Order: sequence, then C-alpha cells, then structure tokens
Amino acid sequence: MSRKVYVAGAAHTPFIGKFHPDFIWKKHPDFGKRENPTLEDYVHRAALGALEDAGADPNQVDKAYVGNFVGELFSNQGHLGAVLAAAHPGLQGVPTMRVEGACASGALAVSAGVDAIRAGADLVLVVGAEVQTTENAKVGADYLARAAHYRTQRAIDPFTFPALFARRMRAYSEAFGLEPAELAKVVVNAYGNANKNPNAHMRTVRMSLENASEASDKNPCFLSNEELQPFMKVSDCSQVSDGGSAIVLASKEGLEKLGRGGGQTVEVIACAQATGPITGPEDLTRMEITKLAADRAYAQAGVGPKDVQVAEVHDCFAVAQLLAVEALGFADGPGGARKLIAEDAMAIGGRIPVNTGGGLMAFGHPVGATGVKQIGELYRQLLGKCGDYQVPGEPTLALAQNMGGDDRTAVVTVLRRG
Amino acid sequence: MSRKVYVAGAAHTPFIGKFHPDFIWKKHPDFGKRENPTLEDYVHRAALGALEDAGADPNQVDKAYVGNFVGELFSNQGHLGAVLAAAHPGLQGVPTMRVEGACASGALAVSAGVDAIRAGADLVLVVGAEVQTTENAKVGADYLARAAHYRTQRAIDPFTFPALFARRMRAYSEAFGLEPAELAKVVVNAYGNANKNPNAHMRTVRMSLENASEASDKNPCFLSNEELQPFMKVSDCSQVSDGGSAIVLASKEGLEKLGRGGGQTVEVIACAQATGPITGPEDLTRMEITKLAADRAYAQAGVGPKDVQVAEVHDCFAVAQLLAVEALGFADGPGGARKLIAEDAMAIGGRIPVNTGGGLMAFGHPVGATGVKQIGELYRQLLGKCGDYQVPGEPTLALAQNMGGDDRTAVVTVLRRG
Repeated sequence: MSRKVYVAGAAHTPFIGKFHPDFIWKKHPDFGKRENPTLEDYVHRAALGALEDAGADPNQVDKAYVGNFVGELFSNQGHLGAVLAAAHPGLQGVPTMRVEGACASGALAVSAGVDAIRAGADLVLVVGAEVQTTENAKVGADYLARAAHYRTQRAIDPFTFPALFARRMRAYSEAFGLEPAELAKVVVNAYGNANKNPNAHMRTVRMSLENASEASDKNPCFLSNEELQPFMKVSDCSQVSDGGSAIVLASKEGLEKLGRGGGQTVEVIACAQATGPITGPEDLTRMEITKLAADRAYAQAGVGPKDVQVAEVHDCFAVAQLLAVEALGFADGPGGARKLIAEDAMAIGGRIPVNTGGGLMAFGHPVGATGVKQIGELYRQLLGKCGDYQVPGEPTLALAQNMGGDDRTAVVTVLRRG
Repeated sequence: MSRKVYVAGAAHTPFIGKFHPDFIWKKHPDFGKRENPTLEDYVHRAALGALEDAGADPNQVDKAYVGNFVGELFSNQGHLGAVLAAAHPGLQGVPTMRVEGACASGALAVSAGVDAIRAGADLVLVVGAEVQTTENAKVGADYLARAAHYRTQRAIDPFTFPALFARRMRAYSEAFGLEPAELAKVVVNAYGNANKNPNAHMRTVRMSLENASEASDKNPCFLSNEELQPFMKVSDCSQVSDGGSAIVLASKEGLEKLGRGGGQTVEVIACAQATGPITGPEDLTRMEITKLAADRAYAQAGVGPKDVQVAEVHDCFAVAQLLAVEALGFADGPGGARKLIAEDAMAIGGRIPVNTGGGLMAFGHPVGATGVKQIGELYRQLLGKCGDYQVPGEPTLALAQNMGGDDRTAVVTVLRRG
C-alpha cells in the first residue's frame, strides 16, 4: 500500500576520542599542530561519503535530515540543516532539518527520512553526527543529562546517565542474579569486534575478561552516589566519541535514478517508534518502550525475533544490551540474556550476532550518529561488506534498536535484503 | 495523488515576557510568590489546548512533533519528544520527536507532520514552544547566535542577529531609499494588531509613529558595532518571548475519526521548504531561500501571490517583513514593499493583511512556537475566529512564511478553506 523504502548507500567517518590513536590531546605528538575535526566537518564528510557510496549526485537529493543531540552545547552550533546545506553546492536549496531525541536522534532522522520517502520523495540523505570531546567529562555529563528529566534527575550523580543505568544494573542483578563475569563477557565481545573494525573508536584497545570483570585503579567504579557506585565501572560504559555517519534512502524510482533498478536491494521493511514520558521508567528490569517499538516493528515487517539474523542494539551501557535483547525478543523473557551470554549467541558466529562492529561500547557513541550508523552497519552486513567482522551465512534479515534517554524514545528498524 | 492534509485544531498559550502584565520579574507584585511557566509547562498546555480545540482524545494521536530551538540552553532540557509524552497518559507511547531549524523550528515540525500524514498517519499533533527569559538579554543573544554560523558570525556584535539584520537594513535603505517613517509604519501596524489580541506579548503596549521613527533613550540603537548601530533600534526587533502553540493535523480519515467529516475544512494545499548554506546569504537585498520555498509552494498549491488573502510572515525584524513580502511576490519586485506600506496594504483592512495578530514584533517570538503559531493563526482567520483582529471578507486562501537564521531555512505553507 505505502511506497517501499530502500537503503542505497552508507558511510561512516572514523569514530574517535580518548584512546584512539588519531585523537589529538595533550600527549599526542601532533598536539598544537592540528585539531580534531569539528561537528561541521563530520556532518560534511559523512554526507558526501554516503552520497558517493550510493553513486548519487548531491543535487539529486530531494530532502535531508540531520540527527544530532547537543551541538548547541559542545560546538555552539545549532541549525545543522543549514550546516549540511553548506557541504556541497548541489545541496543548496535542498529542504533539510535537524531532528533530536537524545541518543535516539540518529534513528529519528532515519524515521523522518522514511516518512519523507513514503510521502513522495525519491532520494533522501540522512546524516547523524556529534562532537563531545570539546569539554571535559564532568561538563559533558552535565550536557548529556539534558536527555533525562533535568529538573528531577540531574542530581542523582555528577554522571547522571551512568547512575541511571547503575540503577538498572542493580535492579537487574537483584532480579536475575547476574554475575560480574557474565557482564564482562558482553564487554569483551564488543571490544573484540571493534578490534576488527577500522572505524572503531576502540580499534586498538584490548579488553580482557579479567579487566572487564573487576573494578581496579584503571577501571574504577566512578560514581559519587554511594548506593549506585558498585554497579557501574568504566568498562561497562559506551565511549565519549566524535564522529559522523550517513545513509541514502531511496524509493523504487530513486534506485532507478541511481541506475540501480536491478540487482540486490536492502529494503526498510519496518521503522517503528515509541516515546515514553521523560519522568519514567517505572519497571527498571524491563525496557518497555523498546518492547513497544519492537512489537510495532515486527507487526509492520511481518516477521518475528527468531527471523532476525544480525542486530544492532543500543548498548550505551553493558546492562542496556541485556535489557535490549530481552525487549526485542531475542532471549527467553526477562533475565533470558544470561543464557544468550552463556551460549555466546551474540558473538559474530553465534545465533543472533549483536553489534558486530563493536557497538556503542567499543565502535563508539557519537550520540547523534549512532542511530544512523546502526542502519549503515546492517546495510553493509546484508551486502557482505563488513570485512573482518562480516557475519557468516549471507544474512537477509537485520534489526536495529536505537534508544534515547533511559528507554524514553525507542526506534526499531528492520531491513531485508532482496 | 498524495493524501490530503487538514488542520483540525489549534491553540496558543499567551506569549509573555518583559512588558507583559503577567510576566514575573523583580518589579511584579507576585515576584517571589510565583514563577513564570517552564518550557515543559508550555509544551503541555499548548498540546492539550490544541487537542481540546480539535475534539481529539490524546490516544487518537498517531505521531507527534515538537518544534524548539534551544531548550538545552535556556531550560537545560533536550529530548522534548519525551517531555511531550508526559503531558497526558494518552500520549504515552506515541512516536514523538523534536525538530530544529533555528527560528524555523516550528514550521519544520509542521512540515514533518504533513509528511507523516502523507506517509499514512491520520492524526498528528504538532507543538512548538520556547522559553527565553531565564537568562539576560546578552546571554540570550549568545544562545540565539547558534542559529547563525557561530564560528564566523558570532563576533559581528554581542547581539549577533540584530546586527545581521541591521546589515540587511543598511543594504535595503541604500538600494531602495527607505525612510525611517516608512519602517515605523510597519512597526506601528504590528503593535496595533497585537493590542487587539489577548494572547499577544505586547497587548497592552502602545507604539506611536513618532516613537517608532526615531531612536531615543527609551528606544535606543543598541548595537556595539559602530557601522551597523544606526540601522537597528529596539522597536525594529521582535520580542524575547516565552510561549507555546500547537495544532492538530489530520488526513480525511482523521477528520472522520473526529466526527468532522462534513462541514468546513482547512486544507494544507502546500508546505514547501528550502535550506541555504549556513555561511550565507550572498545578496542582502533579497531573501533568496524564502523565494525558492515560495516558488515551490505556489507550484504545489497551484495558486499565485495574488490569490493570497491573509498572510503570516517572519518579521523577526521590521526589515525582514519587507524582504519577506517581496520574496513572496506580494510586492512589485525588490523594493516594492514601500508601495505596500504607502497603500496600507498590509493592514487588517488592506489588500494583503500581514501578521494580523501582531507578528513576531508584537504578538511575540517564542522561537520554536512561531512557525506553529502562524499556522494556528491562519486556521483561525480562515474560520472567522479571530475576534477583534478578524480579517473581513471571509478569506479562503492564506499563506505562512517561517524563517530560520538569516534566510537560511524557509518554510512556506498555503492553506485553503473548503
């Protein structure tokens, strides 16, 4: 009934930050000689990269969207639609807007792009980007707390979001008896995947099961909130990264304009969203908004969790990955992620490979880019383009889950190779 | 071919700020006893007001959009989709996102809502809101400079945007010979309209032609940039306002769900956008991006400028109104606005009434609300609901122009009563 939507191209910049060899900081040999790329740089590079990958001329673009969370704060720059329009003369005049929903900003930009195709556009450019390294970690944590209900939740800890997910971790452990070594396996898997990914923030950082299992001087429990402190180590967290990702969406006619009417396609067979009240969540042991979005996505796509062959989930913290795979139906109900861990089911060779490029924990998490990156990664997996971290068996069905705040905005997207 | 889109309801909160009798500041009798509404309050009140006006139950809403520019800065709050979801239990789970394009954020939210209907939704809630009075004017001006290219344009003046439009004013005066008294007539018309509008920020403030024509102690040229200083007085500026507006958009089926299948309708017959590079503009005497959006809107709607019977234009500064009506084709080419002023054509009884509720200069300009308010105002004009400032002659065709930055994002929307 509605117009079909395809992914026609994708590109990522490298995701960089602390511990990445190209990231400029005071101990880098190039410190003072060159600077890290700006938000503007990332928007432009990702956009032009995706257009090139799609074989699209900039002036073929009908509409464009930019996913970004807090450019106004880290980079003093809003109005990123007009920033994108400056990337190439061919993009001048193209209707472009910025979309925001905290860490789900990227997937919301994808979702708006999908609606634009369904509403009549043929080629839509979707860019996600974030720069977060212009401020120190404490200032950055304050900025990112604007994804929560700042007035009532900011005070939980100087690091508001790590504390909110420590609360999740405590609840999950109490409810389901999770052991430290089990969570550590999830972390180690993410780093191992990132070590095979040339664009990953943590591509050169090794993570051992021992390091990930126990707090130490190098891997401290860093929260000030004493009740929550034991439930969050540095290694349980995603990265503070800079970076950009972009994809090109196309209608059937759009693919034909690109000379790609025949051959393999990757179709967006579902893109479903749910939003919960900023003051939530109620049940800390479940991601209810993600589940709602997933239920809608499966209904749209006409598939179920058992059909998914590769997935990107929003592991902003290690425990979030467990809650996400349970909400998405990959595990046997709440607490079921423990069995997936025991079976190595989420590894690249497992039953349901998750975050094959390293996820938010090790590929990195430039907030606004993440939801776009997920779709780009699945597009590449479905076309067999992931090199050292390619999933075996030529998968045809893939799912992405991107989340804003503490499961307040969720977007679940399903892709099928045809 | 594409699905038709209707406006089914609208509401504004009062727009308030300095000089509004309800605005709490140190000289207000309630100072210390109560506080001004928050961004959250405005989002909620506008949303529930529009749903009530449309006769819609919150759980009938398929999707929702929030237009806001810099909530992260003035209110420490992003993720406004989840803030809207907390307005009413019936809105929980509704897919909701925040949309941003500087001062065009409101119209971009409308535009995203129009696409959502065309893509298959039946009822869409669009909210715009901004709070700007939590900081002083200089800090606020710095925040708002994030609508320009901050890195290269911030330094033009502590008040970046007034300076950018002083530059426009100087160019316009040099090119077309505008006299101070002509510009003053535009300002006086805006205040006169606002004096008839119970929701207007300046509803109790009188503006005389004499006051608006000359700089004075009470109406200073306030820029620090000496070259530009003579070209911008306080009275030439829009207001720093807090407020919210919301509309309900519906498909044909959506109107039927509301029990409004028959009777008068207001259809969105065009909603067109254009975005220019953030580093522009090139020609200071024309709004080229607005013209591009207008050309697209007229083509979509199958009407021309002469068919428009009432308009809302983005008068962020008095000179912007002149440039806008020229770009929209209401005047005889560049410089033609002078003739419209001489003929009182833009007054409520004139040939092409503009900003009948007072516009950004006197109704006020809570940035993210403005583009939504424009559509709500035109909806009310087309249905004869504007009371003391109702346009005579039962207009059937109306146009809104909302702008982000210095003509960098433009959205032109055309409505028709049927």
